Amino acid sequence: MQTLDVKAERIVLPQDDIPRYWHNLLPELPEPLPDPIPEVGGTPSRKRVMDMMEGVWAKEHIRQEYSDEGQIKIPDEVINYYLHIGRPTPLHRARRLEEYLKTSARIYFKREDTLPTGSFKINTVISQIHYAMKEGFDIMADGTGAGQTGCAVAAVSATMGVKAKIFMVRSSYLQKPLRVAWMKMCGADIKPSPSNETELGRSYLKKNPEDPGSLGVTTVETMDWAKANKAFGLQGSIFNYVMTQQSIMGLEAKKQLELAGEKPDVLIGCVGAGSNFMGFSIPFISDKLKGKTSCRIVDVRPDECAPEVYGEYRYDLLSPGTKGPLYKMYTLGNEFSIPGLVSEGLRFHGVAPMLSLLINKKIVEATSVKEKDVMEAGRLCLEKENFLPAPESAHAIKIAVDEALKAKQKNEKKVIVAHISGGGFLDIGGYSKVLNL
Amino acid sequence: MQTLDVKAERIVLPQDDIPRYWHNLLPELPEPLPDPIPEVGGTPSRKRVMDMMEGVWAKEHIRQEYSDEGQIKIPDEVINYYLHIGRPTPLHRARRLEEYLKTSARIYFKREDTLPTGSFKINTVISQIHYAMKEGFDIMADGTGAGQTGCAVAAVSATMGVKAKIFMVRSSYLQKPLRVAWMKMCGADIKPSPSNETELGRSYLKKNPEDPGSLGVTTVETMDWAKANKAFGLQGSIFNYVMTQQSIMGLEAKKQLELAGEKPDVLIGCVGAGSNFMGFSIPFISDKLKGKTSCRIVDVRPDECAPEVYGEYRYDLLSPGTKGPLYKMYTLGNEFSIPGLVSEGLRFHGVAPMLSLLINKKIVEATSVKEKDVMEAGRLCLEKENFLPAPESAHAIKIAVDEALKAKQKNEKKVIVAHISGGGFLDIGGYSKVLNL
Repeated sequence: MQTLDVKAERIVLPQDDIPRYWHNLLPELPEPLPDPIPEVGGTPSRKRVMDMMEGVWAKEHIRQEYSDEGQIKIPDEVINYYLHIGRPTPLHRARRLEEYLKTSARIYFKREDTLPTGSFKINTVISQIHYAMKEGFDIMADGTGAGQTGCAVAAVSATMGVKAKIFMVRSSYLQKPLRVAWMKMCGADIKPSPSNETELGRSYLKKNPEDPGSLGVTTVETMDWAKANKAFGLQGSIFNYVMTQQSIMGLEAKKQLELAGEKPDVLIGCVGAGSNFMGFSIPFISDKLKGKTSCRIVDVRPDECAPEVYGEYRYDLLSPGTKGPLYKMYTLGNEFSIPGLVSEGLRFHGVAPMLSLLINKKIVEATSVKEKDVMEAGRLCLEKENFLPAPESAHAIKIAVDEALKAKQKNEKKVIVAHISGGGFLDIGGYSKVLNL
Repeated sequence: MQTLDVKAERIVLPQDDIPRYWHNLLPELPEPLPDPIPEVGGTPSRKRVMDMMEGVWAKEHIRQEYSDEGQIKIPDEVINYYLHIGRPTPLHRARRLEEYLKTSARIYFKREDTLPTGSFKINTVISQIHYAMKEGFDIMADGTGAGQTGCAVAAVSATMGVKAKIFMVRSSYLQKPLRVAWMKMCGADIKPSPSNETELGRSYLKKNPEDPGSLGVTTVETMDWAKANKAFGLQGSIFNYVMTQQSIMGLEAKKQLELAGEKPDVLIGCVGAGSNFMGFSIPFISDKLKGKTSCRIVDVRPDECAPEVYGEYRYDLLSPGTKGPLYKMYTLGNEFSIPGLVSEGLRFHGVAPMLSLLINKKIVEATSVKEKDVMEAGRLCLEKENFLPAPESAHAIKIAVDEALKAKQKNEKKVIVAHISGGGFLDIGGYSKVLNL
């Protein structure tokens, strides 16, 4: 039997080697995470903020949010669901891209785009719904912007036999009929937000029946609706427990790099709020904090919305128009008007508190890139590696290409790992627009 | 370390175990395949038909088309490319669907939808382009209907550094801007057909500048253009060598079922012309012909276009308006007007000659299903298994569900294997329309 240079193409982690514990980075942070402030004008208190979440979060999430356990056991049912959706996801050696760039560097992609709902979001959706069901919730409420989380919530809820109630920013609802259809196909009850189903929604619609909505309003509507209807409210990227539950991605990647005999020099991930980036980089940040590696860990955002590059590190609201809580984070101000971008998943005025702290302590580097360059990087990935990344993920590819070209100039054998948060099938229209196809 | 029931979720074939030989079924057929007829009114002669292909097909394809070797070695470069795109593809145990159906049967899906260009088409595109380049071709010409093959040709050509020239049926070109954009993104030169680039195209446009085109005209235009421009003409589903090159799918599936300790009772695949179906089922048909298994092998088509169910077994043209060659196959007549269907990949008036013979000899069963039922099966797959199949593939799922329900009534532990030819991200609009979402 001929022996192939199999490692050169794809590092597949055997299913039996899937990590059994999530990595909670909280106890290892270089200084304690600043507590959130419950309300404008108040004083920091994580306890009071967690009390506000009672009844809408699962108790297990409240426990995980500020847990000092470094390892949190992944429930067996969640592990089984991970395997079901194709975890461990592959670590892909971008050999054809390397050849095209004529670089001395080696480029790897961690491929969350291979997940069936199209992005990494499903990882935490599975565990959130698992815990919520264990605690008796039977309606899952989610507020979604571009619809990536909503698509995962709708699909997993259908499988688990619970109801999904989705509020989707009205402008997205109108612009993304395919994602809306996907959620409907799963039997989800989906409403454009602002909606008639909450007091807040009705107040907006009264002023303007065509109100395009915003992620802030949708988030508050979802929480209000969930409270009134005893539903579980799924949480997004800024919370610690969501990052912990996403660490499965980085834990797999670390094992895969070890299998390949590689020590990474640069790790890159895009940031919307932080769960994608942190989920991928937590195990590497941990090694860096312990002095086990000096690898660079790079957060990349769009030029138009890069709070960690040109914002302030201060307390701010997660959603404009709310009274609290406030979190200490890099922010452009909660009322900052973010320009339209194809990468809707990266349009958030802030940065998750944990990631903000790591950037402030210079453990993580932050940078930003031009949309046109990003889309060209996505196109290059399709041309050379034959898969189309989500535009969000193409931010990481753009930096990976830049790093590979720098390595070439110095003839360095650098190992570059870029995180691919999702796939681009539903973003071809966006590529087409920006690239003038 | 806890041991998981990993096999229950997904059977992953190690990369080292990827098959190294394609399976050519020709020498095992129960009787010789009828030779094609070069021109209307002529007599059968495979030699004269192969002579017509000189210069447009690669010589290696002419050799493989009527080869009597049962095993054809897969070139190392092709194996490496297979690994690069994620072969072996997973065999997925549809456990959540089984639970929902409360069936005693076990259902497996062979998952070609996990390939990065969205369907199984890329398997043969890789090997066709590989051989063409080895023989000196540097332009790859493809005539595409719905665009699945075109997307694969564009992507692989970009990677391999050769030009791609795509002719796409004009009505599809207008209705499928996302697939067009994908091909453009890969740098392919894509023309709606009929086009101004061939005499045939110009003659149609002269009569009607808005001519919607047809797969027949596109196929002939592509061949004419390829001949005039010394380009290689990629071939589709009806040819023997294409089926042989697609047998990688079935060879993997067979190994995976063995790994799982399963003996299949029913295998199901959708048919457009036959390469998807044959590529999946060749190794199982071979076992059946040798008396090693009595499993049922089921070909499924749309009610609106099922030549093997209600057509005739006779010589017919592959494309209307051409003079030849003619192949003996199940056909609805080359001028049969096929109704519009979401599953465009299944809209062909005939059945590949090799598959036709097997149906005629009752080795393979043929059946057909209603579009609405198919789309409901696709939706059920999304709900329970969390991935959206291409509508074409949902035909196989519909029959798998029916078989599982029959097994339930008799409490049979039947093993059902359905072939998933592609993914549905770019078909959500079609689902939405048929399901009235």
